[in-house]
Order: sequence, then structure tokens, then C-alpha cells
Amino acid sequence: MGYRAPIGDMRFALEACAGLWSLKSRFNDIDPDLLEAILDGAGSLASETLAPINRSGDQAGVSLKDSVVTTAPGFKQAYAAFRDAGWQGLAADPTYGGQGLPRAVALAVFETIHAANMSFGLLPMLTLGAIEAIEQHGAPDQKELYLSKLISGEWTGTMNLTEPQAGSDLGALTTKAVPQADGSYAITGQKIFITWGEHDITPNIIHLVLARIEGAPMGSKGISMFIVPKFRDEDESRNAVRCIGIEEKMGIHASPTCTLAYEGATGWLIGEENRGLAAMFTMMNAARINVGLEGVSVAEAAYQKAFAYAQERRQGGAFIIQHPDVRRMLTTMRAKIQAGRAICYATAVAADGGDKAREDLLTPIAKAWCTDLGVEAASLGVQVHGGMGFVEEGGAAQFYRDARIAPIYEGTNGIQAVDLYGRKLLSDRGEAMQALINDAREAGSALKKTRGARLVIAADALEEATKYMLSAAREDALAGASEYLMLAGDVAGGLYLARGLANAPGQAAMTKEIIADQTALFAYYAEAILARAPSRVPAIQVGLATLAVEGQA
Amino acid sequence: MGYRAPIGDMRFALEACAGLWSLKSRFNDIDPDLLEAILDGAGSLASETLAPINRSGDQAGVSLKDSVVTTAPGFKQAYAAFRDAGWQGLAADPTYGGQGLPRAVALAVFETIHAANMSFGLLPMLTLGAIEAIEQHGAPDQKELYLSKLISGEWTGTMNLTEPQAGSDLGALTTKAVPQADGSYAITGQKIFITWGEHDITPNIIHLVLARIEGAPMGSKGISMFIVPKFRDEDESRNAVRCIGIEEKMGIHASPTCTLAYEGATGWLIGEENRGLAAMFTMMNAARINVGLEGVSVAEAAYQKAFAYAQERRQGGAFIIQHPDVRRMLTTMRAKIQAGRAICYATAVAADGGDKAREDLLTPIAKAWCTDLGVEAASLGVQVHGGMGFVEEGGAAQFYRDARIAPIYEGTNGIQAVDLYGRKLLSDRGEAMQALINDAREAGSALKKTRGARLVIAADALEEATKYMLSAAREDALAGASEYLMLAGDVAGGLYLARGLANAPGQAAMTKEIIADQTALFAYYAEAILARAPSRVPAIQVGLATLAVEGQA
Repeated sequence: MGYRAPIGDMRFALEACAGLWSLKSRFNDIDPDLLEAILDGAGSLASETLAPINRSGDQAGVSLKDSVVTTAPGFKQAYAAFRDAGWQGLAADPTYGGQGLPRAVALAVFETIHAANMSFGLLPMLTLGAIEAIEQHGAPDQKELYLSKLISGEWTGTMNLTEPQAGSDLGALTTKAVPQADGSYAITGQKIFITWGEHDITPNIIHLVLARIEGAPMGSKGISMFIVPKFRDEDESRNAVRCIGIEEKMGIHASPTCTLAYEGATGWLIGEENRGLAAMFTMMNAARINVGLEGVSVAEAAYQKAFAYAQERRQGGAFIIQHPDVRRMLTTMRAKIQAGRAICYATAVAADGGDKAREDLLTPIAKAWCTDLGVEAASLGVQVHGGMGFVEEGGAAQFYRDARIAPIYEGTNGIQAVDLYGRKLLSDRGEAMQALINDAREAGSALKKTRGARLVIAADALEEATKYMLSAAREDALAGASEYLMLAGDVAGGLYLARGLANAPGQAAMTKEIIADQTALFAYYAEAILARAPSRVPAIQVGLATLAVEGQA
Repeated sequence: MGYRAPIGDMRFALEACAGLWSLKSRFNDIDPDLLEAILDGAGSLASETLAPINRSGDQAGVSLKDSVVTTAPGFKQAYAAFRDAGWQGLAADPTYGGQGLPRAVALAVFETIHAANMSFGLLPMLTLGAIEAIEQHGAPDQKELYLSKLISGEWTGTMNLTEPQAGSDLGALTTKAVPQADGSYAITGQKIFITWGEHDITPNIIHLVLARIEGAPMGSKGISMFIVPKFRDEDESRNAVRCIGIEEKMGIHASPTCTLAYEGATGWLIGEENRGLAAMFTMMNAARINVGLEGVSVAEAAYQKAFAYAQERRQGGAFIIQHPDVRRMLTTMRAKIQAGRAICYATAVAADGGDKAREDLLTPIAKAWCTDLGVEAASLGVQVHGGMGFVEEGGAAQFYRDARIAPIYEGTNGIQAVDLYGRKLLSDRGEAMQALINDAREAGSALKKTRGARLVIAADALEEATKYMLSAAREDALAGASEYLMLAGDVAGGLYLARGLANAPGQAAMTKEIIADQTALFAYYAEAILARAPSRVPAIQVGLATLAVEGQA
């Protein structure tokens, strides 16, 4: 059996945990019936069109010849189905053909796409980033020109940040932009790790490129953002941007990761001069939720495959799902997946509802906690399969390979931890985090007869750790930042799962069976994850001096 | 820079942590000078001969045509170097050409081999298993015939357990053995997942095969063990065993994983009729320490690569090793590696010293805790590399793929947990475990000015968990068995690291700098691993009823 959208778990996370209906006044087009129809539709696309080309895409990969990237069989047709159903524009501006639905709903749709085919999902995900950048920073004529074609899915978009000499350090970029008489810029430089940077799926590709205008200040304050279409708007001629290499990667083989050479390509400034990094960050923030969700998605796909295998594989006269240890692995996967899903959806609901403090706080947590979960769950999925898990034919191995990229791109998880500490915690002296802690404590206290106390204790630990992070020397705080983020994720997951149990009883779709099932999941989450959360505090407080890497013989 | 044997860490683990010199009275040939020479020699083979063909072997893989397996370029020459230096027989019986050294020393040698090239290391590792099986269960003429050629490395050995319908459930084997007039048996059946089951490296291969003699009882009590040489001894003619398939795997590409078809092949009974499973278990026990060590090895290789990358990769004007989070990842890797190494070596020293209770107790812990560590460290190694970690060219990806097999083969880690509970804990009502707990408590208490208290608290938690495991209903205990094993591993790692700090000051090779470095490592281990250990108890006590996998929508 292939992937099927876990609509019960998704709706519980979206409606009960993340509180989708709190958005009713802002988005009056959406109701439970429409939500159901959307998720069913997306689920069908995922299981009938995208999942069947996941393994074949992994095997076929992509190829590059004479600057032309040829994608794996079936991807063009699958994209056409995605495009024609209008999925790209679900949450986009109606002025340009979007449907103006909550981003949280679009996120749920993308969950099924990523789960069915992570390589495929990156294409519309990057387009989404381009749409958001142009919506927020584009001039009216730029919106006119590009938005409708990106929103309809006719064209796709890319993000061009990294250069060979500058990985996560964008201030070191050297790609240059020279002003031209017609108001455009000639862009010259090399960009690496450009996801879906070149392909044969759509007739045009819109590159958003960070570059330095001649004479701009050094470092990150001299970077501007440009739109560089593969085919020029004025005359539809080929622009001077070429794919000169694709990476041989461990996973997501069907997604071309390109090196792009810009050789005086025509680009148009988007947003203000030298403010490109800020613009790119807006766009990356949205992308980070989506990458966090990828972690949830690949974990869900791995879970379903492992669950199905455990139900059909006999060992010693019994199906292996009857082995307690196999059940432990599956339950660990499902409980953490549901927590991660709730975190991602809650981040999007916060964005939709204008709760910027919560959105900003949760974004690095969603990205890092959920992508680590993706790797962990994919690894457990391999383990459930035993020897079959290590053999490519079994399919579990692909999830393990694919999942590994998510903790790296869109800012490594280490960078997320620095972001949580520097941009989120220090910037408001812990106010947004304290609100999360209070919410968690309240949600834990409200749960009776369940394991709410574990959540309260974990929230207390997060409060203690937060005080440390706010008072410690910067380098010491940074030494504990990743572990601190993980603790915050454990608590946030517990908060939203607990909130789901509190909210569910009033909601139409939440049957007694569903609530009982989610209550059981929370119980396991409390014992296996929340109970461990406070013990992260010593590692958070460890301090830089204890990180003793030297001394290798 | 490629892999280099970490001789300082290895010697500290072997001499100070595991107490190698407590074996002096049993093995009077070994002294610090000889040990140094052995480790230097093995280290040279590893870095100069085996490491250079690790990535090329991954890329080339192995191929099968007309039952002939062709191995990757350079493997034949590398094996010749290994064989000619006499490494295979280091701990083997001197009567047949072995050197009779402690197994712990041989294990250290194998650490460098596995780390440099995990695919390669499997070949002598399987041979080692065959040597031990024949040493322990073979008749005098069988020893005469096979041992000297296996010990010299002229021939290699395999273990044939798994069949398509029977994975970990050996009682379901159907391969049959029909007695022949000359005292041999005709073996017929199919075996899968046979590591190095066929290859072009040595002129003969000695298969140890589990099969059922006609008329034997059903289940595990009707299984016997046979020696089936690829070429018959009597006339050097080809035996009726063929490789009919090799697996397409996620990693260890240079190691052929074979499906072998036995079609009336000539086999010779080894050990008693219907006692084959017991014989195989003896052999597997030794192999389990070796597989645990593989986890340590691949983790070390991943660590070294990540460490080197962090030292040479610039980001934002600084080398990334200066980022606190990168240091955290590297220190996590190194601290757990040293703990895992100490556990494996201590297991071998217990075996060498005749402390069977400790050896038996530690074996499943070494296997499972250290192979999980291998996966975790390889994943951290990828993360340190950032985008380069996901690209195959970087080399970190291979460790991540290779490492994933070790928690699966030689009995999955779930099976190790069942073994620890059923065969080790229940069988002596917790006596051996209590001795370990007492040792840990004592070692923790003896440490001053360091973080010994963390070890004492972790030992207390293990004691509490042990009481639970001994009193809980079987299914509930099994639900917590894996987490229990991990807790035991955390404590065992702490015990042997602490013991190293206590033992080191008297020993010649242990300079002040080494002791200071290992003290720092222990401090980190205490804060990041031991401090978390007690929080495993709720997950151990969770009980089967809380494992709620059902309810998938």
C-alpha cells in the first residue's frame, strides 16, 4: 500500500491543536466542508499521481547536458496535474488569481505533496517562496508581470543565495549587478545549491537572486535582490543564465540541485537597493515552515510504510506489529509526527491570524525540531523493516536518504538555534517565549486524568532554561542553543497536542474514537518525550568551555 | 586528510577504561610496546591501504554475472596486504597459526579496519566468526582442515542463517540436509543476506550453514550447523552452492550481500546434531561485539572527517569549528564514541579474562548502544558539513548510509533488547546487572571535582529501572526493553570512562595532557548524556497498553 493522506490526524492537528477556526473572521470562505474537500483532493493527487513516481524518480534522477536539465519520467505530467488543479495559488493573493485561503490550509495541502514525493514538492515550494517575495516586495508592474503566472503554476520560481565561497554567510556574496541604461541590471556570478534551478517542466523559470550592486557597501548591508527570468520579458529571448552543474546527492534525486552561472544576465531590482537580505529573510521565514513540514511529511511517509510492513510481515508465527518493540518504534514515530504537525500548523495559523510574535518564535522551532524528527522517524522506519530496510527495493531507505537534507537547507538547524536565541529570545527579552511557556503550563494544568503534569514540568524546565539563555554570556548561550531549541520544541509539541484535546470535544469532525486515539498519543508523548525534556537543561547550561573537541591523537 | 587511527583515544579506552593489563597473567606475551607496535601497524594498513579505497568502493560497488561476484577495484590487493601481515589470526589459537593475543587487542585492530573501510572489514569479521565457531565446535579433523587456512586469511568464512521466509526467526528455517553414505550431507535450500557470500578475493570460501537434517524436530530444536566449502576438500571440485543474486543496498556497496542457492551441496556436520542454533549463537555473540565496534568505527570516521572539515571551512570570516554549535556536535560525537569504544573493549576484556557474566551482559549493550551511536554520529557528521554533507562527493554521506546497517544485522537492536531482558536479566534475576550498577556507583563516587555525581544518579535510575524490569509483566517489560538497554548503555559508558580516569594516572602512556583531555570529555558526557539518562525511566515503565499505534485515519 502506498502513501495515503492521514486526514484524521491532519484535521485534528489543524482544527483542534492549531485552532484553525479562530481564523473564521479573517477567512470567511473556509468551512469544514470545504476543508474536507481540499484535503481529499490534495490527498488524491498525492497518493494517485505523486507517490507512484517517488521511487522511480529516485532511481532515474535528473541529468544535465548542454545546460539542459532533463527530469525523471512522469514528473512533467504530474506537475501538469498539480498546476491544473490550482494548488499553487491556494493561499495567494486573489488579485492575481490566488484563492486567498489561510496559509495553514495550504500548508496541510503541501504536507501531502511532500510526503508523497519530497523531490517533487520542492518545485512548488520554491515557487511559493518567489510568490511571497514578489507579493511583499515587488513593484506593481512586477506583480502584474510575474505573480499571475507563478500563482497559476505556469512558471516556477527559485531562490539564489549560496555561492561557492559563502555558505550560510550571505554577507560574503560576490555576485555583482551592474546598472544598465534601461533600468535593468547585468547580473554576473555563480550560485550553487539552487533547488530546481533549471528543468524542463515549465516554459519559464523566475530566479530571485541576491547580488551586490556596483559600489554597494561590503558585507550584508550591500546586498540587493533581483528578479532574473530564464526568458526575458521584453523579447522572450533566452537570458544569460545557464545551469553548469548538478549535484550528485545522497537523496531527493529527482530534484535537480543546480549550479547556475549568471553571465551578464538581465535582472530587475526587487524591493529597495541594499535591502535584499531583509527581503530574502521574509521569504525564507515562510520557506522555513515549509521545510519543517517536509520533516513531518517524510516522517509520515516513513511511518505509513513501516506500519504497513509491520502488519504484513510475519516472524515467528506472528505479525511483527505484535512485538512490543516494533509498537514502541511506530508509536514514537506517530506521536512525534503529530506533535510536529501541530507545531507547523500552529505556526501557520499564527501567521494567518497576525500573531507575529508567536509566528516568529515558532518558525525556527518548526524548522529544526521537525526536520530532526524527519531524520529520526525515517531511521526508525528503516529499523522496523529489518534487513529489508537497508535494501533499496524496500523503499524505507529512500526516506532515510531524502530526509537528511531538511536539517541542512533553508538555514541549518544550528542556524535556527542561533536565530531563536538572537533574533527571537534576546530581541524581546524572552517575552514571546514566556507567553509560550505560560500557554503550555495552562494547557497542561487543564488536562485531567491524563499526563498534563508532564507538560507543566517540561514548561517549568523551559522557563529555567530561558532564564539561563537570557543571562548567560553569548558564547555560552550559543553552546546550548540547539539543545534549548529542542526543549522548546518538546514543550511546543506538548502544548499544541494538549490544546487539541481541550478544543476537540466541541468540534464536528472530532468523534469520540478520534479523541480517545489522540489522548493515547498524548499519553505516550508525555512519557517518552515530555518526561525527558527537563533533562536537556544541563546540556543547555553546559557552557562553551566544556565543549572539548581538541586533543585528538 | 583521510582517516587516521586515534591511537591516543584507543589506548586510553583499552588500557585505562577497559583495564587491558588486568589480563597480564593470562596473556604474558603482550606489553605496552607490543601493543603500540600492533596499533601502529594496523593504523597504517587502515589509513594507507583501506581508507583510500573506501569511496571508490562505494561508487564501484560489486557486480554479479553467471554466479561470479566481481569486487571493487583494489579490494583484492588490500586483502592481500591484510592477509600477509597476519592480522586475521591475532587472537586465534596458536596451534593453527594464530597469535593467541587477547581478543581485546584484536578488537582494537578491527576498529581501525572498520573505520577505514566498513565494507572491507566485514570480510575478515565474518571469517573471525567462522574461526571461532570451528575452534569451539569443530572436530579435530575439521580444525586441521579449515582453521589454519582461515586463520592465515588464505580462505574466508561466512555465516548462513537467514532465509526468505525466516528473518530473525531462525526456528522457521527450511534448508534441508540429507545424510550421504560418506558421512557428509547434501544441503539444499536458499539463504539470503549472506555478507561476502561470494567473491573473487580468495580461492576458497567456507560457509557455515544452518539447516535441518531430514526427520529433525520442527522449530529451533531441529537445526544443525554444517560446513560447506565452496570448493570440496576431497577433490577440489566446485561445490553445489551458487550466488544467484546480490542486494542493491543503501550502503556498504563494496560488500556483496548475496543470495546463495544450495542445490545438494556437500556439507559436513559441525558440532552435535540439532544443536546448531546454540553453536551459531556462540559465534553470533562474538560477532555482536564486532558489530557494536563497527558502530564506534564508523562514528570515529565520521567524526574525523567532520573535525577536519570544521577546521578548514571558513564561514563569516572564521573557521566553522569556532561556532559553538559545531563544537557541540563534534564534542557530542567524540564523547559518545569514547564511551562506546570503552564499552566494546571492556566487553572483550571481560571475555579474555573469563568474566562471562559481564561479557554476556555487555554484549547486547555494546551491539545496540554502539550501533545507534554510529548512526547518530554519522548524521551529526553530515550536519557539520552543511550542504556538502548531503553531496556524495563530500564523503560524509557515505558514513551516514553505511552506518545504518549496523543496528539491523547480527540481530536487530530490538532483538538485543529482548536478549538483555530475557537471557541476561531474567536468567540471573538481575545479579550481573546489579554488579554493573554497583561498579558504576563506585566509579562515580570515586571521582572528585568532576561530574561523578551524574554517574551515581544515573546508576540509581538504572537500579530503579532494573527492579521494574524484573517485576513487570513480560509484555510490559518488553515494551520498555530498548529504552532500558539504552539506559544501561549510558551508565556502562559512564562507568568505563570514569574508571579510565581512575586507572590512568599509574600508566606509562597516560600523560597529564591525555588525562586532562579525557577528563574534559567525561565532563561533557556527564552533562549531555548521563544527566539525561534517568529521564529514560518513564519510557521504560510506559507499559504495552500505552503503545497506541492504531487509529490511523
